[in-house]
Amino acid sequence: MTPAEQDPNQVLIFDTTLRDGEQSPGISLNTSEKLEIAQQLARLGVDIVEAGFPIASPGDFEAVETIARQVEGPVIAGLARIHVGDIDAAWNALRDASRPRIHTFVSTSDIHIEHQMRSTREDVIGLTRAGVAHAKQYVDDVEFSPMDATRSDVEFTAEVVQIAIDEGATTINIPDTVGYTMPHEYTAFLGRLYELAPGLRDVVLSVHCHDDLGLAVANSFAGVLAGARQVECAINGLGERAGNASLEEIVMLLRTRQADIGLDTNAVSQEIARASRLVSRMTGYAVQPNKAIVGRNAFAHESGIHQDGVLKNRETFEIMDATSIGLDSNSLVLGKHSGRHALRDALAQLGIVVDGATLNTAFKRFKEIADKKKQVTAMDLEALVTDELREEIPAYALEWFEVEASSRRPPHARVGVTLPDGSEATGSFTGDGPIDAVFHAINAATSVEAKLRDFRIDAVTSGQDALGETSVVLEVDGVSGAGQGVSTDIIEAAGRAYVRALSNAVRRRSVATEAEAATAAASRVTTP
Amino acid sequence: MTPAEQDPNQVLIFDTTLRDGEQSPGISLNTSEKLEIAQQLARLGVDIVEAGFPIASPGDFEAVETIARQVEGPVIAGLARIHVGDIDAAWNALRDASRPRIHTFVSTSDIHIEHQMRSTREDVIGLTRAGVAHAKQYVDDVEFSPMDATRSDVEFTAEVVQIAIDEGATTINIPDTVGYTMPHEYTAFLGRLYELAPGLRDVVLSVHCHDDLGLAVANSFAGVLAGARQVECAINGLGERAGNASLEEIVMLLRTRQADIGLDTNAVSQEIARASRLVSRMTGYAVQPNKAIVGRNAFAHESGIHQDGVLKNRETFEIMDATSIGLDSNSLVLGKHSGRHALRDALAQLGIVVDGATLNTAFKRFKEIADKKKQVTAMDLEALVTDELREEIPAYALEWFEVEASSRRPPHARVGVTLPDGSEATGSFTGDGPIDAVFHAINAATSVEAKLRDFRIDAVTSGQDALGETSVVLEVDGVSGAGQGVSTDIIEAAGRAYVRALSNAVRRRSVATEAEAATAAASRVTTP
Repeated sequence: MTPAEQDPNQVLIFDTTLRDGEQSPGISLNTSEKLEIAQQLARLGVDIVEAGFPIASPGDFEAVETIARQVEGPVIAGLARIHVGDIDAAWNALRDASRPRIHTFVSTSDIHIEHQMRSTREDVIGLTRAGVAHAKQYVDDVEFSPMDATRSDVEFTAEVVQIAIDEGATTINIPDTVGYTMPHEYTAFLGRLYELAPGLRDVVLSVHCHDDLGLAVANSFAGVLAGARQVECAINGLGERAGNASLEEIVMLLRTRQADIGLDTNAVSQEIARASRLVSRMTGYAVQPNKAIVGRNAFAHESGIHQDGVLKNRETFEIMDATSIGLDSNSLVLGKHSGRHALRDALAQLGIVVDGATLNTAFKRFKEIADKKKQVTAMDLEALVTDELREEIPAYALEWFEVEASSRRPPHARVGVTLPDGSEATGSFTGDGPIDAVFHAINAATSVEAKLRDFRIDAVTSGQDALGETSVVLEVDGVSGAGQGVSTDIIEAAGRAYVRALSNAVRRRSVATEAEAATAAASRVTTP
Repeated sequence: MTPAEQDPNQVLIFDTTLRDGEQSPGISLNTSEKLEIAQQLARLGVDIVEAGFPIASPGDFEAVETIARQVEGPVIAGLARIHVGDIDAAWNALRDASRPRIHTFVSTSDIHIEHQMRSTREDVIGLTRAGVAHAKQYVDDVEFSPMDATRSDVEFTAEVVQIAIDEGATTINIPDTVGYTMPHEYTAFLGRLYELAPGLRDVVLSVHCHDDLGLAVANSFAGVLAGARQVECAINGLGERAGNASLEEIVMLLRTRQADIGLDTNAVSQEIARASRLVSRMTGYAVQPNKAIVGRNAFAHESGIHQDGVLKNRETFEIMDATSIGLDSNSLVLGKHSGRHALRDALAQLGIVVDGATLNTAFKRFKEIADKKKQVTAMDLEALVTDELREEIPAYALEWFEVEASSRRPPHARVGVTLPDGSEATGSFTGDGPIDAVFHAINAATSVEAKLRDFRIDAVTSGQDALGETSVVLEVDGVSGAGQGVSTDIIEAAGRAYVRALSNAVRRRSVATEAEAATAAASRVTTP
């Protein structure tokens, strides 16, 4: 995305769900999960997908490489500190993309330069000059971020920014790394940068705001009004600490108030609801009911409330239509008598093409669910698909379980688990709660001492026969793994999620190479 | 709170958790729960507590009356449409408060006037004049809101506002009822109002912003910079649709950037975390992990992430200290050998005074939990207390349960329930999931056909022996009831919550008088 290609009335959407979002504690996505999210981001019409931080780990590298090769449409960006090694790794991961971008950064605030980098301003200038030039050797599309810009001296930031532009950066991103700025302050800072770094007029100005004080969207929007034409944001507002600006809020603000703002985006807003559900499910990060745009209550008539005013005239209380974010997908409904063909067609409507053995697996699980639920909706199918179909060959599989829970004695669980060698092992445990007992019984059956780090339960759909969705994060020998499970039976959902998380952790542990150990330091690096 | 009492550098915090927040779908608080929240709001140093909408239902009236009588410190406000009946009801509920406020409103936007009120601008002017004057007969502290102000003609709004001021309104609130405005637009609107309604300089200007486009906090803050000295907000950003501005974000923005903004609030920020947990627990509305200030991840070092930079210098990535919102309360820890005295002292530290039979109940439950959990923290105690101690005599009680769940046959539950007449009844059911089976078994035992409306599970504390907290909303003959349950055993927690919800619904059904039916229309009314 070079400045010449940029329509001055379009705001580019740069999604960092897979990079800044994925750095949230407890999120642990594997490559196929990241690919699935990237494909949904492409459907959503995001302009740039920041796919990861390739130097951080072999897993991050592989994910960026896979997305660069397989996802068409958006620019694919990879993050790199302003060092040769980082930039080389980013390029090696990105080189097969149709439209690759290297995004490189260095701190400009004195507090970061002194306490985190233990360096000097002179050093930052030299690094910027060399780093941007190095990235530019590989690719024309280079983005540069002065980290912690909003707490930096504006004159020094402008100097560094102008150097990055002189060396060929085509996008300059001004991050509010710690979520500290206020809209009027950010406007003033950006205005001053325009004065002090005249080259800024010839590149795309970008904003990247964190939500620590609840102002990420407002600050991003202030940036847009000040001239920024790229907003860095994430689905559901994921990101470090309180997260980044929510993509869905940015897009719907620009769309809903388009007549007054006079700007637009390429985003296909009808894909927002699905993107939100997919990311929530895969990361295990719930969206609160009162979250703007994608919360369960955001559209009053969706939550079953038909206020007096709404009945009389929709516009009295609604400024957006639920269909504009794709909340009408419940029209697709299958039942217990639906066949294999109907299932394949329904999945195709969701953009998921399945055949052969995968269709058989999907159909088997669909029938199990349809036996228990009267109607299987598009949302149920999405949950099943992400639960089942992206499964690689699992290291372990939960074959059966039996649980007795009672107020009269401690709950007891027995489980049967297929081991990686194909044999079946059983385990039993008496625990504090029925789910706790199942988890320990699985540990016993597999002889793996996994430690539970996080466990969550959500309802996918509402009503008495709702699907329960569980998410487990656990740790085996310091390597974490995450898994999800879906069922009308909460214990079954939890057991499935636990076994999947276990499989992921054990698989990751076995591929944790020396290379990973060598770059482990990088994964603890701080980012914009 | 008259304008004369108002320090020009103080921003008044007006909490509407119990009014706008309580209007969120599925929230169904009884009087003792509302009182407990109001008491925590008083500890938090909120200036004004909007306790409810007295005309809406006898339950709302009772809650406002109870809070007005028992909660000292804040001004207690009650909402009223600009009609004599509403204002009389508000005054009757509020009259025993040390510092009562009537908050009355009428729409000024043409879309509301035509489609919702089916009225005229002339009518709105007449209603405002008469309504404010009527409220003023009862009390000096009168707040007036032109509903949907931000979509109203500014000149008409100014005319109405000036009339309200002339009739004695001491606070003028300008709501962004549908969450439509943008910060620069809101600033301009308020600026124009100051020009057109000169009396606005002599009263307290208030803002009330909804978060439909993610801008509630930013718009509120823009209002403050434009001269507003009262912000209407709610704990965890609860409220209709996407909710109101988050109290915690408003307070911590003003506090964190105080040196630059030059304003402050009376809020005791150290009570924020506890207020957030209490409201989340009682309403069943979870707070997402990446929510600003009160989300689990908001403070990086709380979520176990010790970034490189944070270790070197806390300020490199943290702009707030977790202790500033009271996140250090985990220092209080009890164990299984702690006695009755230690429990009473620990509860007293949390501001909860228990004695006699209540202490015995608390101690019994504490021992049950302590047997299963190594350490019982302040957060566990809070959960137990809200779970157990505010219990009135329940209509039903869960005495025992037995559940068999297995992948091989449908789950089966048997339960024993004490009925209101003291006898015990048993029930059994084979369901889709173990919790589903327990719920239906309880229906069978009580012979009440309750319909499940909402069911949620959360972990109170982290780790393998976390307490599970469940929240149930159900409906009996069209009357809803909510209940919570806490246990290390998820099935037990769910069963307790269900029985409590059932008790609440049945109790409410029996007090649903003809008066309630007569005023049912009012409960569907639209509000600012």
